[in-house]
Amino acid sequence: MKLEKASKEALQPHIDQLVTLKKKLDEIIVAESKKEFDRTKLETVLRRRFFYAPAFDIYGGVSGLYDYGPPGCALQANILQLWRSHFILEEQMLEVDTTILTPYDVLHTSGHVDRFTDLMVKDKGNGNLYRADHLLENWLSAQIKDVKTDAKLKEEYSYVMTQVDNYDAKELGDILRKYNVKAPESGNDISEPEPFNLMFKTQIGPAEHDSKGRGFMRPETAQGQFTNFKKLYEYNNERMPFASAQIGKSFRNEISPRAGLLRVREFTMAEIEHYVHPNKKDHPRFREVENVIMSFLPASEQEKGVSSTIDMTIGEAVRSGMVNNETLGYFLARISLFLIKIGIKKERLRFRQHMSNEMAHYASDCWDAEIQSSYGWIECVGCADRSAYDLSNHTKRTGERLVAREKLDTPIQKNVIKPQFNKKEIGVKFKKDAKVIVDEIENMNECELKELKKSLETNQRAKVAGFEVSSDMVSIVETVETCYVDEYIPSVIEPSFGIGRIMYSLLEHSYYVRENDENRCVLSFPPVVAPVKCLVVPLSGHPSFPPFIYELCQLLRSKDISFQKDDSSSSVGKRYARNDEIGIPFGITVDFQTVKDKTVTLRERDSMSQVRIHMDQVANIVASLANATLSWNKVTETFPAFVEQEIDN
Amino acid sequence: MKLEKASKEALQPHIDQLVTLKKKLDEIIVAESKKEFDRTKLETVLRRRFFYAPAFDIYGGVSGLYDYGPPGCALQANILQLWRSHFILEEQMLEVDTTILTPYDVLHTSGHVDRFTDLMVKDKGNGNLYRADHLLENWLSAQIKDVKTDAKLKEEYSYVMTQVDNYDAKELGDILRKYNVKAPESGNDISEPEPFNLMFKTQIGPAEHDSKGRGFMRPETAQGQFTNFKKLYEYNNERMPFASAQIGKSFRNEISPRAGLLRVREFTMAEIEHYVHPNKKDHPRFREVENVIMSFLPASEQEKGVSSTIDMTIGEAVRSGMVNNETLGYFLARISLFLIKIGIKKERLRFRQHMSNEMAHYASDCWDAEIQSSYGWIECVGCADRSAYDLSNHTKRTGERLVAREKLDTPIQKNVIKPQFNKKEIGVKFKKDAKVIVDEIENMNECELKELKKSLETNQRAKVAGFEVSSDMVSIVETVETCYVDEYIPSVIEPSFGIGRIMYSLLEHSYYVRENDENRCVLSFPPVVAPVKCLVVPLSGHPSFPPFIYELCQLLRSKDISFQKDDSSSSVGKRYARNDEIGIPFGITVDFQTVKDKTVTLRERDSMSQVRIHMDQVANIVASLANATLSWNKVTETFPAFVEQEIDN
Repeated sequence: MKLEKASKEALQPHIDQLVTLKKKLDEIIVAESKKEFDRTKLETVLRRRFFYAPAFDIYGGVSGLYDYGPPGCALQANILQLWRSHFILEEQMLEVDTTILTPYDVLHTSGHVDRFTDLMVKDKGNGNLYRADHLLENWLSAQIKDVKTDAKLKEEYSYVMTQVDNYDAKELGDILRKYNVKAPESGNDISEPEPFNLMFKTQIGPAEHDSKGRGFMRPETAQGQFTNFKKLYEYNNERMPFASAQIGKSFRNEISPRAGLLRVREFTMAEIEHYVHPNKKDHPRFREVENVIMSFLPASEQEKGVSSTIDMTIGEAVRSGMVNNETLGYFLARISLFLIKIGIKKERLRFRQHMSNEMAHYASDCWDAEIQSSYGWIECVGCADRSAYDLSNHTKRTGERLVAREKLDTPIQKNVIKPQFNKKEIGVKFKKDAKVIVDEIENMNECELKELKKSLETNQRAKVAGFEVSSDMVSIVETVETCYVDEYIPSVIEPSFGIGRIMYSLLEHSYYVRENDENRCVLSFPPVVAPVKCLVVPLSGHPSFPPFIYELCQLLRSKDISFQKDDSSSSVGKRYARNDEIGIPFGITVDFQTVKDKTVTLRERDSMSQVRIHMDQVANIVASLANATLSWNKVTETFPAFVEQEIDN
Repeated sequence: MKLEKASKEALQPHIDQLVTLKKKLDEIIVAESKKEFDRTKLETVLRRRFFYAPAFDIYGGVSGLYDYGPPGCALQANILQLWRSHFILEEQMLEVDTTILTPYDVLHTSGHVDRFTDLMVKDKGNGNLYRADHLLENWLSAQIKDVKTDAKLKEEYSYVMTQVDNYDAKELGDILRKYNVKAPESGNDISEPEPFNLMFKTQIGPAEHDSKGRGFMRPETAQGQFTNFKKLYEYNNERMPFASAQIGKSFRNEISPRAGLLRVREFTMAEIEHYVHPNKKDHPRFREVENVIMSFLPASEQEKGVSSTIDMTIGEAVRSGMVNNETLGYFLARISLFLIKIGIKKERLRFRQHMSNEMAHYASDCWDAEIQSSYGWIECVGCADRSAYDLSNHTKRTGERLVAREKLDTPIQKNVIKPQFNKKEIGVKFKKDAKVIVDEIENMNECELKELKKSLETNQRAKVAGFEVSSDMVSIVETVETCYVDEYIPSVIEPSFGIGRIMYSLLEHSYYVRENDENRCVLSFPPVVAPVKCLVVPLSGHPSFPPFIYELCQLLRSKDISFQKDDSSSSVGKRYARNDEIGIPFGITVDFQTVKDKTVTLRERDSMSQVRIHMDQVANIVASLANATLSWNKVTETFPAFVEQEIDN
């Protein structure tokens, strides 16, 4: 049709039709992948192989707390190791390790004390507590599913469902009352929604009720990075831009955790804070990623009610203005590359832009990397431009200037507003309080100084820190100054990774069942993140095998390869099957041929194909396979195939 | 003298003299290393290069909390990486990652709720709190130093000083009262010592005063391992012995933290729990370490007041019975090898056995690896045989049997004592409480059952869980059974590493000042733990250098080598000096020769010697040097030396 030079008008209906078809196809794919997925079966495998388990379950467990067993712990460690290499080493980021315990003042400044809350309602009869939005959602979805609900009401409920996240306490209370929602277990009345702060409180130091000792377990690793900004900037020889990074535990006291690893009270995060000039957000290495194709779901589409994604290169996305700037775009692309490298399926990964109503008030743009699992599309990485919000607030609160400075090639004229004090006058009047007043004024921003100036000029007096100061004590002057240095509070671009969520998604994406045998489950992790790289098995309990097994283990150890030995009495096939469930990508078998010529068989997990290889070479080969510098195809080309049926019993 | 076959009597005085001289020499060495060490100077370097800093210091800081900056964080990460390789990979230990949040019940069972305390006194005037033993120690040492104190009293004070750790609350109170010790700042009277629990309390879940939600931040990583014993044993195909391991943060709410990184409120631990049959503590790999020579300070010597160490092989130490068993000995040797590998000086490392009065009541033997620094000999690794204490208590409390089973080659006859219930009778009498009573009896150990039997037989009744049961409801029978399986609660041998303390000791051991230039400080970390492996510097700001710097950085990145670029305007010499303070072992300089032939210079930190080497080879060479598979000597033999004075300004 293009050849016929059809007019745009003639083409449009066909394009529309194609777009509609594409959308339907996407929806079908999503629905299929949901339908076919047997989560219970995967969870059985994960429990059996101790990837993770409810913490303290011999004590009845604590909801929202999970322990990682050996394969889960190793999988997490490998993901983090790759993260360090992909982000920290690649960009010479400054990694820090700051404390989990955080004093009240710091989290008050950051806004967490006032705003890090969920709305909670109480069962008026038995005192049970519920998260208000979840309660409403559950009620709505029950009504929508109910055949007796009439069509018009269903439409209303569906609309309310999409708005749940946007309601404040009063609105949510009004709606719960309007629909007469009750406590689900008891049928009792519920209280009005009230905010519940999600931080775990504790007391630092021995004085029980000393307000100075009030503290929290951090809800994010970011604040420990911001409070160290000055030292990091100096460590970086005062060069901009640069990034700090941190891997560590954070804590959220969820009201009623559910959905396994996706909503927990204690979790590992990996966060990057990239500091950049607010007006210079281009990125020198952007060209290295500009051709990376990603799936985007921009805010504008969501506002139209569309949920299908747009595929384009990050280059186009930034040039079109959809993604705010190059630095943000650079990180989005790097995040995408990282997730795919560890084994997340490209077609189940999308980047969704926050709509204006869900974005933090200070953020200038924000995208979530969402990964699809049987729980739907889940936010696994957030990537926000936090602007200068945090560094400004800490500066203001502490008086420590968290700023960067750049020498200007050509000096500029700048309007400056600043206070001039008559310190004697202030001292006489306020004595020991004088310092408080002076500090307060010196830490005012431009707006506040203008306000103060106006008040002093109009009324000859103004309130500062609760004291009344007069115009003979302080005046606010506006001048023009020549600046040779540009001093500014940097903007912060923050890619923030929820490692547990990524890991759970990876488990779903890696899981499959062998054709023709629904009892043989496999976790097909890429070798580089697989919890254990190599399985070592003797063909049987024959006494000639152990010396070879011992030597093999020594060889693997000397190469720092994590391996597992399985010399139990089950058949080789059964032992391979058992260890496929841990996702071990390679397996070495010692058999009677080994005793003759020191060759062993090497097996690959997904193809189940095997080669014969000399013991002296095998550790090096496995090491290269494990760090992805050698492919299995190459191995099968180089070494003779070994063909023998796996015996299943 | 030996040749003359001198009699033992004749030799003895000479031997005694030699022993005395050796002791004096040791004391002199210790004193010298203390005297010469300028801690303030090291601390200035550590602060300037942001190894670590007080947490939240822009908010005034919180005592006992420290943040690690980039070099501190990387040093820690490298130590932990090596730890994983040296312990976990080497022995196929099962690494886990369990939660920091821990419910009350678990830590009540472990004894921490009741016994994890320090004694605290209060200033009766202003309410300030002090750790009672530290207060007494400080007072004593002030008196001992005071010239006006008479000699006899000094002797008494010195004796009391050695006993401070052994006093209970009452004894400590008596002594503080006897000496009339006052609060140091105010001179006010102090209160009687009271125990203060060192765990950080918090509330898990939204219900503010729900006792079910009471919890703590863990004081050690061990309990999360013990509570998962059953799953770990199954994961290990029910083979014994085996070990689990965990790296993570733990917390102690110290009353008044001091001594920098050595006594903090939040710290990283690495703990191994090795599970073993209580009567089979030999170790299959002991022969691999039996010739390792270590310095021991056994309990018997300490009880004689001796503080000089005995050097011998771990093989001798175990054979002589000084170290309780092979497994404990194996770990002591492995700990010693690890510490020396990361750069701890052998002559400043000793293994001190706990005396019976300082050992936990359940431990059967315990040794601390102590490292000497300017703070004295500090416990950095504890290695205790915890016996079956923890697993028994959790079994008893939860009813979940944390046991191992081994098939017996020849069945044995075993005296068995067990309850027989008349469940109907119990049910009728106690209704819903019946279960509590039955459970309580079923979880009784042998001793308790014998006690109950006696009571039932003597009085026809007994108290169980607060209820009175009679002999017609339950009887305790003793029989002989034939056992084909040995079921037992394993003993646990626990090497427990305080990573922050090890790291601080390493900083002191690595620190030196260049001869002839007291302003040039160096941290001579072994390459394998050095925070940054390679420095990249252009000779000057000449515009022909940046493309080579860019290419070098790409080459180093491709090998996962952590490097730092320093293209500031200071001289090369100054830039090397600055980065010697971070302990970067190797440095590459791009100079005018590079532009001609693509060769660069490679410099070693401690010798400051340099070679010329082609850019295509340098990344591989640095990678091998960094992982210690290649020595610098070998490099200087292979490549031409580059001789040029380092320019100091």
